[in-house]
Amino acid sequence: MNFSISREQLINSLNDVMKAISNKVTIPILTGIKLELTERGLLLTGSDSDITIQRFIPTEHNGTVYIESEKEGSIVIPARYLNEIVKKMPKDVVTITASEQHQIEIVSGAAQFDLIGFDANDYPILPNLENEQPFSMMANVLKSIVKETVFAVSQQETRPTLTGVHFEMKEDELYAVATDSHRLARRITTLEKLPEQPFNAVIPGRSLQELSKILEDDEEIDIIIADQQVLFKTENMSFYSRLLEGTYPETSRLIPTEYETTVQLNGKSFLQAIDRASLLARERRNNIVHFETMDDQTIKITSTSPEVGEVEELIAAEMITGAPVNLAFSATYMMEALKAIDDEMIAIQFTGPMRPFILHPVDSQAVLQLILPVRT
Amino acid sequence: MNFSISREQLINSLNDVMKAISNKVTIPILTGIKLELTERGLLLTGSDSDITIQRFIPTEHNGTVYIESEKEGSIVIPARYLNEIVKKMPKDVVTITASEQHQIEIVSGAAQFDLIGFDANDYPILPNLENEQPFSMMANVLKSIVKETVFAVSQQETRPTLTGVHFEMKEDELYAVATDSHRLARRITTLEKLPEQPFNAVIPGRSLQELSKILEDDEEIDIIIADQQVLFKTENMSFYSRLLEGTYPETSRLIPTEYETTVQLNGKSFLQAIDRASLLARERRNNIVHFETMDDQTIKITSTSPEVGEVEELIAAEMITGAPVNLAFSATYMMEALKAIDDEMIAIQFTGPMRPFILHPVDSQAVLQLILPVRT
Repeated sequence: MNFSISREQLINSLNDVMKAISNKVTIPILTGIKLELTERGLLLTGSDSDITIQRFIPTEHNGTVYIESEKEGSIVIPARYLNEIVKKMPKDVVTITASEQHQIEIVSGAAQFDLIGFDANDYPILPNLENEQPFSMMANVLKSIVKETVFAVSQQETRPTLTGVHFEMKEDELYAVATDSHRLARRITTLEKLPEQPFNAVIPGRSLQELSKILEDDEEIDIIIADQQVLFKTENMSFYSRLLEGTYPETSRLIPTEYETTVQLNGKSFLQAIDRASLLARERRNNIVHFETMDDQTIKITSTSPEVGEVEELIAAEMITGAPVNLAFSATYMMEALKAIDDEMIAIQFTGPMRPFILHPVDSQAVLQLILPVRT
Repeated sequence: MNFSISREQLINSLNDVMKAISNKVTIPILTGIKLELTERGLLLTGSDSDITIQRFIPTEHNGTVYIESEKEGSIVIPARYLNEIVKKMPKDVVTITASEQHQIEIVSGAAQFDLIGFDANDYPILPNLENEQPFSMMANVLKSIVKETVFAVSQQETRPTLTGVHFEMKEDELYAVATDSHRLARRITTLEKLPEQPFNAVIPGRSLQELSKILEDDEEIDIIIADQQVLFKTENMSFYSRLLEGTYPETSRLIPTEYETTVQLNGKSFLQAIDRASLLARERRNNIVHFETMDDQTIKITSTSPEVGEVEELIAAEMITGAPVNLAFSATYMMEALKAIDDEMIAIQFTGPMRPFILHPVDSQAVLQLILPVRT
């Protein structure tokens, strides 16, 4: 293999592919990035076996030549060194040569690196999902679904299924749900382009977070869900993730359908007040704040940390209807739920001091956040 | 004590004073910041017993009122909470009240915090250096002295004196020297305003780093050096540091006075080449690069890391005179020395393969960096 490539293009693509590289992998070849050079361009692949990210750099695009190819071929190059070397090279063009014995030479200007690579034939083979029928959505929609749900996945491996976000088609609506059994996040999205078959899959939270970092807002993304893998695909990027096994719990019955109290307030002001109230209790794992309705327009937030002191704040609500509320919850859960709702005015609906309560935009339940109160 | 204060002024001042607060202090009261309110304004003090930082906020400045004072007094408030609370308060004004029993109330808008403070009378008393005769320099000069020397102090406590920068007056010149016994950094500054008496003091490296972060470039700074303390003072800030005890080694004889080879080159290009050459060897503690003169205008830099590979780069020098050079040195030391010299063209002067070599701007030795080669 022997080619010269635009250093800027290579840096950008490596930046994405590197997100799949982990220091923890036990398979040595996965510490490397696979380069496959064909007439069409250069395909870069990085993987930690859970996630695989591919980026394609075309030989030319809109008349700009990115790659001067001398000899096609493939090689696996130690990822961390490749990435740092390319970033620090002195010229705008980098020339990479790999011998049959996997000796690699990387040259730019007067700087030359000689590295030892791996045989590309030993690199794990990806599942072939290219022929499956995809459905598609805009990347910014997918990113908002992830943002509104993924923070609520469980961080504990005791119930592995809960470390993922559950995606399920119900008629023309895509339900995305995450829960760690103390709180739940749900987003319902009406799809314009429906998949051919209904599906039901649990995608690891970490995969969705890494995917979100790579996606541009304004590109269309094809999604292919197979038995054990999901593929997200844009023009020059492919993102594979394994799916989580096991049946996701039935969550719809957890969400109350009748409420005793509804509070409407400004989400951002409320978030800032909760943030302040949690200041004194930061060290405790789930710092607790108390929430109490005072009249039909005032809420009192309090928090006490015995060694440090206490904090109290009165908040003006837009409207409070129904029975008085007096309960306590995790400030962390509340802040994460509030950050997942972009709307200015939000509604909080309560059913009783020890029953879960929900948050959502005033005029929609497309985004719904549920939190279990805590006993104090 | 009872006063209202501009939140922005308080945030800015706390930002500086917090730099003296350490999580490692064993004296409980030093986890707090002392507030002293007088007619003139509010004095904030933070300390970890090595460093003490004071900021003064005047009651008014240029017609703008910063403080509305109801009752003078003093109190010590837990630093971390005070800082976070003030940052997150909802309004532009914060009101602080402290009772005789050290109960503290911090209010802004509808948010109220109640904290437990410490008696300000129990706070350590600072040495009184205000009456000593200061000498002064511009803060940007002091910052450049620190930048050009402090990185070379020893990180090991086995010879405590070497963890500081040695400041010494010789006639009208201030010598600042740091060494960890493998390399040395020296900066000579001609002072316009001389101290009344010659002095000789070793200031802890960490103190100088924290001081540099606080200083504005364009302010004049008064410096008072006493037996065990140094005070740096600007209009509204006082920075105290303890001095290191013990005699600083005589370093001038370490610097060769005759040289066999002189190389002149572009410092920035050379730094980038060393940075590249050290890429493969990053994991080794002192990564080593080889330096070899090829002819009277070319240098070859090489580095080899047995498991990873090797790197080679030819560098064009402006001029090479004298005997050929072939030696090895720590890439880290070389990069830090090069970063401490701002000038475009630098000179490197060698005396022999195992003798220390020096770097300095081509037409000056006001900044001089010395490095010991390593045996390979």
